[in-house]
Amino acid sequence: MNIQLLLTPFPLDRAELEGKTVVVTDVLRSSTSICASLLAGARGVIPTGGPGEAGELWAKLGPDNAVLAGERDGVRIENFQYGNSPTEFTPDTVGGKNVILCTTSGTGIFVHTNRAGLVLSGALVNISSVAEAVARADQDTVIVCSGREGGFSIEDTLCGGMLIDQLNGNHGCDVTLNDAGALARLLYSERKTSLQKAIAQGEHGKFLASLGLGSDVEICSRTDSMPVLPMLKDGRLIRSDGA
Amino acid sequence: MNIQLLLTPFPLDRAELEGKTVVVTDVLRSSTSICASLLAGARGVIPTGGPGEAGELWAKLGPDNAVLAGERDGVRIENFQYGNSPTEFTPDTVGGKNVILCTTSGTGIFVHTNRAGLVLSGALVNISSVAEAVARADQDTVIVCSGREGGFSIEDTLCGGMLIDQLNGNHGCDVTLNDAGALARLLYSERKTSLQKAIAQGEHGKFLASLGLGSDVEICSRTDSMPVLPMLKDGRLIRSDGA
Repeated sequence: MNIQLLLTPFPLDRAELEGKTVVVTDVLRSSTSICASLLAGARGVIPTGGPGEAGELWAKLGPDNAVLAGERDGVRIENFQYGNSPTEFTPDTVGGKNVILCTTSGTGIFVHTNRAGLVLSGALVNISSVAEAVARADQDTVIVCSGREGGFSIEDTLCGGMLIDQLNGNHGCDVTLNDAGALARLLYSERKTSLQKAIAQGEHGKFLASLGLGSDVEICSRTDSMPVLPMLKDGRLIRSDGA
Repeated sequence: MNIQLLLTPFPLDRAELEGKTVVVTDVLRSSTSICASLLAGARGVIPTGGPGEAGELWAKLGPDNAVLAGERDGVRIENFQYGNSPTEFTPDTVGGKNVILCTTSGTGIFVHTNRAGLVLSGALVNISSVAEAVARADQDTVIVCSGREGGFSIEDTLCGGMLIDQLNGNHGCDVTLNDAGALARLLYSERKTSLQKAIAQGEHGKFLASLGLGSDVEICSRTDSMPVLPMLKDGRLIRSDGA
């Protein structure tokens, strides 16, 4: 299996995605919030590229069918019902509804993936579910790290490295990696015994802690704590793990 | 010393550069060609953002004062006298002249550095000269890796990691690193005993070899083989090592 990891989404425009599996990862926090929403019984999560698009969609779907959630620079968008903390997405708040989600880095990426064969949302909280699905699909794979402020982010790179490690180790996939994939695997192998600490002490982790969101960072770092598999179908992330 | 390493130039627009040292690195090949040009006796190297700008400048300076060099996707730009191979820049071709250089990733970065206190061009071939100058300047430092096709490149990241290693190890600088800087240091520490091999087997190294430019990759990987210090002054890179 050929695996191409992108440390930031910028090269995505030029990537060949046809017939490939794409895993979008934004550990802090949208990929984690997507898992939390689906686990809480949301019908689906609709990733959007901007607040305007999200607001229009919400007006169209109506409050009985959808909630509006998202953040810019870590803070809830004005007039949105929810921010981007995984703790906000509970059966009470999102059960039976669509979550229209708009975040700084993560959600906009999905619009670039429409040529892919299979699109998954991956986080640390569902890493083994994602690895299993990627191994089962058994096709060339692109791991897109959302990164942060145009640069790489340590938590997404660690997540990509852990995915590669599981594909190769647990699932016996014979993987060939691009340079960034090899780097991510190296980073994961160096930090795997102190994953939570590496993320908490990373730039994004410290930034969120400075906003009083340190517990979110801790929640997002718990591997396999939300074993759900969000798969993109017609522009909406839905559970594809049979629940 | 606070060191911020950028794996790609994209976050540069938002970086605070005032009063800082900026090191631009494009190991394959523009940073190496800059060193080769200055060692060969060029009066200076003028980095440009595009072929049009480069051509206009050449028309203005005239063939007695300047040569026009550059590449797109590894290949010499049509109607340019030279490409971007360090072997092209000799006393015969560039001695006493300015080299107007235009490359895919590296040269355009310099236009974003005009607020910086000190701007250097760093490669593996002049790594110790750069480390010494950065240590001497003793101010916060931004290492800008040119990367490749919007993504990171292993050779520039290794070069950044080696620079950090020398600053901390050889010069005793007390460095604090951003996440990318820590990653670069980790990569360098893992690969330092097989630096040439890691670069030759990287994506960019293999791409250049496929164009028949494998010997350039080898030349660009020789640490400290061109001990010269290119410093930006009024838009032109000149020797600042007293030669």
